[in-house]
Amino acid sequence: MTAATIRISRPRLMARIAALARFGALPGGGVTRPCWSPSHEAARAWLLDEMRGAGLAAWVDPAGNVFGALGVEAILPDAPVVLTGSHIDTVPEGGILDGALGVLAGLEALQAIREGDGAHRRPLAVAAWSDEEGRYGSLFGSRAFTGRLDVARILEMAAVDGERLADAMARAGFDAARASEARAAPGAVAAYVELHIEQGPKLEEARIPIGVVDSIVGIRRTRLAFIGQADHAGTTPMPRRRDAFLAAADYALRARALVVADGGARAVTNVGVVRVHPGVSNIVPGRAELVHEMRGPDARGLERLARRCAALARAVARARRIAVEVVPMSATPPAPCAERVQRAVEAAAKGLRLRSRRLYSAAGHDAQNLAAVTDAGMIFIPSRGGRSHRVDEMSDPAAIERGANVLVRTLLALAS
Amino acid sequence: MTAATIRISRPRLMARIAALARFGALPGGGVTRPCWSPSHEAARAWLLDEMRGAGLAAWVDPAGNVFGALGVEAILPDAPVVLTGSHIDTVPEGGILDGALGVLAGLEALQAIREGDGAHRRPLAVAAWSDEEGRYGSLFGSRAFTGRLDVARILEMAAVDGERLADAMARAGFDAARASEARAAPGAVAAYVELHIEQGPKLEEARIPIGVVDSIVGIRRTRLAFIGQADHAGTTPMPRRRDAFLAAADYALRARALVVADGGARAVTNVGVVRVHPGVSNIVPGRAELVHEMRGPDARGLERLARRCAALARAVARARRIAVEVVPMSATPPAPCAERVQRAVEAAAKGLRLRSRRLYSAAGHDAQNLAAVTDAGMIFIPSRGGRSHRVDEMSDPAAIERGANVLVRTLLALAS
Repeated sequence: MTAATIRISRPRLMARIAALARFGALPGGGVTRPCWSPSHEAARAWLLDEMRGAGLAAWVDPAGNVFGALGVEAILPDAPVVLTGSHIDTVPEGGILDGALGVLAGLEALQAIREGDGAHRRPLAVAAWSDEEGRYGSLFGSRAFTGRLDVARILEMAAVDGERLADAMARAGFDAARASEARAAPGAVAAYVELHIEQGPKLEEARIPIGVVDSIVGIRRTRLAFIGQADHAGTTPMPRRRDAFLAAADYALRARALVVADGGARAVTNVGVVRVHPGVSNIVPGRAELVHEMRGPDARGLERLARRCAALARAVARARRIAVEVVPMSATPPAPCAERVQRAVEAAAKGLRLRSRRLYSAAGHDAQNLAAVTDAGMIFIPSRGGRSHRVDEMSDPAAIERGANVLVRTLLALAS
Repeated sequence: MTAATIRISRPRLMARIAALARFGALPGGGVTRPCWSPSHEAARAWLLDEMRGAGLAAWVDPAGNVFGALGVEAILPDAPVVLTGSHIDTVPEGGILDGALGVLAGLEALQAIREGDGAHRRPLAVAAWSDEEGRYGSLFGSRAFTGRLDVARILEMAAVDGERLADAMARAGFDAARASEARAAPGAVAAYVELHIEQGPKLEEARIPIGVVDSIVGIRRTRLAFIGQADHAGTTPMPRRRDAFLAAADYALRARALVVADGGARAVTNVGVVRVHPGVSNIVPGRAELVHEMRGPDARGLERLARRCAALARAVARARRIAVEVVPMSATPPAPCAERVQRAVEAAAKGLRLRSRRLYSAAGHDAQNLAAVTDAGMIFIPSRGGRSHRVDEMSDPAAIERGANVLVRTLLALAS
């Protein structure tokens, strides 16, 4: 068989998507499967079995990244691989495709290529990157693989609920202190292409089956701790109160207005984590913590917004006679996708008589870490109603099949 | 010995305060001892031992209230008791005196009266009321004792973190369905007087050792759930977002302004409980819950404020295209203290050459439930710096001793 005739098996791919969705499944649909959790680790074991059953060499690296490969048993510069992949962790109450699609379509693509004896000069591999969703640290596994992990900080990393990364990894059988050993040697990856749902409405609204990502959003996350004074909520006179929650509320409303007014058309902002301490109705909040996230296509613009928001936080705190700590958590720079990969995706779509369109990814992806070490790109398929990070996230099986077939051709082109 | 010569033992009282403070003690000082928790139940067992060791009859009622009595072994109309008491549960990260003082000074007063053979026509008893701080329901134990418990709702009662009262009670060996059996028969209580720290700055600032409470604040608590839409925090365009947290923040700021502007000088307000769902940085908050508490001396004024705040919540939600549920949680009416009890406290202070002043309690207390079934009142002693509901809450040992001696004389006067 030639590249032009190799097709993935839709039933096999859909069966694997359904099987993976059972790990961490929620009663009303959707899934909660944070990295290193028991359901994630069970999914990892299942994935390794599936990879081996499909005839791939399979292994796990010290950062918890899972690999399945065709033609090699390690990723080394003497045989640079063309890599695909995504992640199998999810946000809380997330959908069954975000991440899972790219991993399982990658596995299916490699299996179809193997069964079809598709010619490929370079070895092929599929990766499931650890903690893409960033429970403990944004894009953790791909950061480790691409040498972007701040080694000195690994043992301090913790989830917003205080759970330490090192403890979560230890329970799953990993040693956090060794995560940086996952770094690939320079030249070990020849190219990277990731299939993902769009997670937005553009492809569906334009009735375009294939999106070719031209650049990936930059993301900055900052933790703000407003520190006032816990006091009795009955006896403390109103003018004497130093209420940390009201300061946080004031900041959140104003920071949104600032980003919308001055961030440009593509900048977005969210306060998704809010913790108020001590958290009972008869005590004035003494401490309020927020995680403030900003995204945009332009690294300098994001930096400028972050500086202005930090100044805003200090001004709000000062006006309310309280203190504030502003701690940068992560800053993933925006990443342009490689022209070579974009053209390969466009050619693959064209060969399958599918229309494609270039677009910008407002979601962060492991591909933006890979872009620092190799030619990287992404293929998007439409999301129903543009919905993602929610339990009713879905794409049509026909759209999934189209995307996986475009992935097969793209991989073969990049590996030829 | 006569009433005029009986004095409490300061070393014994201070030793018991220190001993009780060890249950749920925090490393940096202060205590977290919520009702029905293991540390609370250990404290209960210790208290029963101390009561029996002091020569009192001691028992626990079906609502978890602990009683120690001198002269009777039950609270019945054929021998109406003069009752004192307070509570041994605490807020999270609370102090060692709020509640504990009234229970242990009550125990000490009864022990001193017993040892001094103080004459008292009526039996005397001390109570530790369940869940005064309202983890599961405001003033739970005294509500049950005074027949103010909404029996139909007991099995639905839950803490803000979702833990059910019935489960917490079951773990502590109690049956929530039987809590209403704690109701005392009409006429069983001849009078009630409670010693408590002021929890505010007035006595200390005026250098007055004894406060005579003339009325106790009314408290309304309302749960507000703002319901928007959880969405991807990168790909969802800003104008399409229906962010529940921003609505909650907007409400909290405006509701405070409304109460301060229109509630009168004594009305206060607090949003101490804030929960944002799903609570991760890359998802737009789909749900935000607040507990909004308002206090004031005037029942009608509070009702009017509650109506206006509910209207405000609906207006904020409507403007932001989201929904809101406004659920009243509790409404404890303001309670005047009995003139007879106030005069007895004033006379007791005068007999000990202590200045006293009448004042209003902006904190809620079990005494306001007791006021519905008997002549009830309260004795306040100064709080250092007016601090309460925090780990550094404290009163001077000399102030504690003065308060306990005023309690002895007041109890003997009410029981004569």
